[in-house]
Amino acid sequence: MTFRLFDAPPREPSQFVGFAGNRIDRQSETRADDCVETALADPRSRLLLLREGRVLLKLDGETFDPWHELGASEAFEPQLGEAVFLGFDTNGPVLAVPAGVATDSLPATIKAIDFRSVYMQGLLDEAALGALAQGAALLAWNASHRFCSKCGHASETRAGGYRRHCPACGADHFPRTDPVAIMLTATREKCLLGRSPHFTPGSYSALAGFIEPGETIENAVRRETLEEAGIRLGRVVYHASQPWPFPYSLMIGCFGEPLNEDIQADLNELEDCRWFYRDEVRQMLARTHPGGLFTPAKGAIAHTLISTWVENGI
Amino acid sequence: MTFRLFDAPPREPSQFVGFAGNRIDRQSETRADDCVETALADPRSRLLLLREGRVLLKLDGETFDPWHELGASEAFEPQLGEAVFLGFDTNGPVLAVPAGVATDSLPATIKAIDFRSVYMQGLLDEAALGALAQGAALLAWNASHRFCSKCGHASETRAGGYRRHCPACGADHFPRTDPVAIMLTATREKCLLGRSPHFTPGSYSALAGFIEPGETIENAVRRETLEEAGIRLGRVVYHASQPWPFPYSLMIGCFGEPLNEDIQADLNELEDCRWFYRDEVRQMLARTHPGGLFTPAKGAIAHTLISTWVENGI
Repeated sequence: MTFRLFDAPPREPSQFVGFAGNRIDRQSETRADDCVETALADPRSRLLLLREGRVLLKLDGETFDPWHELGASEAFEPQLGEAVFLGFDTNGPVLAVPAGVATDSLPATIKAIDFRSVYMQGLLDEAALGALAQGAALLAWNASHRFCSKCGHASETRAGGYRRHCPACGADHFPRTDPVAIMLTATREKCLLGRSPHFTPGSYSALAGFIEPGETIENAVRRETLEEAGIRLGRVVYHASQPWPFPYSLMIGCFGEPLNEDIQADLNELEDCRWFYRDEVRQMLARTHPGGLFTPAKGAIAHTLISTWVENGI
Repeated sequence: MTFRLFDAPPREPSQFVGFAGNRIDRQSETRADDCVETALADPRSRLLLLREGRVLLKLDGETFDPWHELGASEAFEPQLGEAVFLGFDTNGPVLAVPAGVATDSLPATIKAIDFRSVYMQGLLDEAALGALAQGAALLAWNASHRFCSKCGHASETRAGGYRRHCPACGADHFPRTDPVAIMLTATREKCLLGRSPHFTPGSYSALAGFIEPGETIENAVRRETLEEAGIRLGRVVYHASQPWPFPYSLMIGCFGEPLNEDIQADLNELEDCRWFYRDEVRQMLARTHPGGLFTPAKGAIAHTLISTWVENGI
């Protein structure tokens, strides 16, 4: 078995995907049950304000700022009882909080923008985008886990939103993070891309699926590729990971070596699935494809996989 | 960014860890809501019978067989209403089922053995151990998610145990798999091992912790190592993954490059944490350490990380 630490690049590929640049000091080992209350009593605290898949951004000239001073956030009706504690950045404590305000009654200097657009349009720097991924995932988990899955009783938040305790049966529940395998199957000449019926017309991407109970990452890659495309894989190699707050996935990106050529696409999952040669994929990445086909934008882990293969998979 | 598919070894390191050898054809894309009923009507079906962290094994001479013929399983009181569908092996459908029988009233040819001992003592082959990981994780998830986490109403099983549907609010819930980062921090000369207070005396292992919302795998490795040991990491490299059915984790094993030497152990988490030179670790792996220290047994992903570094991390 190979040991690749000392010949690795200084920054791993996961540092170049969207949502990966979080620099908050989480201090996860020492989160107290009252860490939200402590932070809310600290005038330095700043808030991410989220509502229904959107984040409230302050328009500051040409740039957007997602951080709201605690003392200046009242007009947005922050639901402080549902706040989650993110940790500390260089200016002090930071939290994520649901906003109660109707997004059509915001002042002109505040924009409520959906997470995907924030990311696709590059409205925030990497550190803020990483904080958004953390806050969005954590608020979504709390919102969908208000009741104990063991006994059905209402559960209570603890540890700044990183635990929910059931007072009836005593169970503790922790945030869930769903690992998803996303894989580019490739030879030296061509790679396998597919499109789901709900993709934008012309868009093709790497195949993906949830890792199931009792699977290694690599075996999930093999199973998904066989089930969705009828392609058996030999070698599978991990490349990069990405937090994906829709609502709380961890994308795990791999390359796979095909052992057969004939595609049998699962038409329940994929509208189309085929081999693309390198020159065509280069055009799809550059958005110069004569047929208008394209691959996911920079920042998406599928883009990282596809562009890495185009440039280096020789 | 490097592309490592075509110079990878024929079998990835994840194929050499325990619980990784599952060969069941899950047919995950086509699981019908009545797939358990269909399988229970098929006389070829075989069952894994589990009870309270133990699996019922048939003692067959010197070997153990975890598969029970459906028609011969009645004495073990299989709770067929809670059966989960694993998929198909070469002999037909396979399921995992909770057994109602008291484990102290079993015949002499049936042994109820806890999952960890089955794995540590190598009682089953890799394929059966992989099936056990799948069945144990899935039954544990269903048992701890009988109620809808969104509204508290009792939920109902669907898709062979791979989905739970809430008839009150309409929510669908899917099995959870908790990604855990486990990492060996190492230079060319020494590596970082720690022990938790609940470890067997003398046992030292790689550090580990749950990946949090909004983190890449590599950043989780850095955070955990800094928080638990006070060691900042530079490069982080993925090595292998392992299904870990206690109750439904996915261990993600990495190597990390330390940027400082002085350890500040989090004494809430670790009883001891220190640097070990290669020769000492070799003795710990071989269980010949003069002080009686040792590392996890073969099959554990920590063993894979540690032995790979000892043999190849030059």
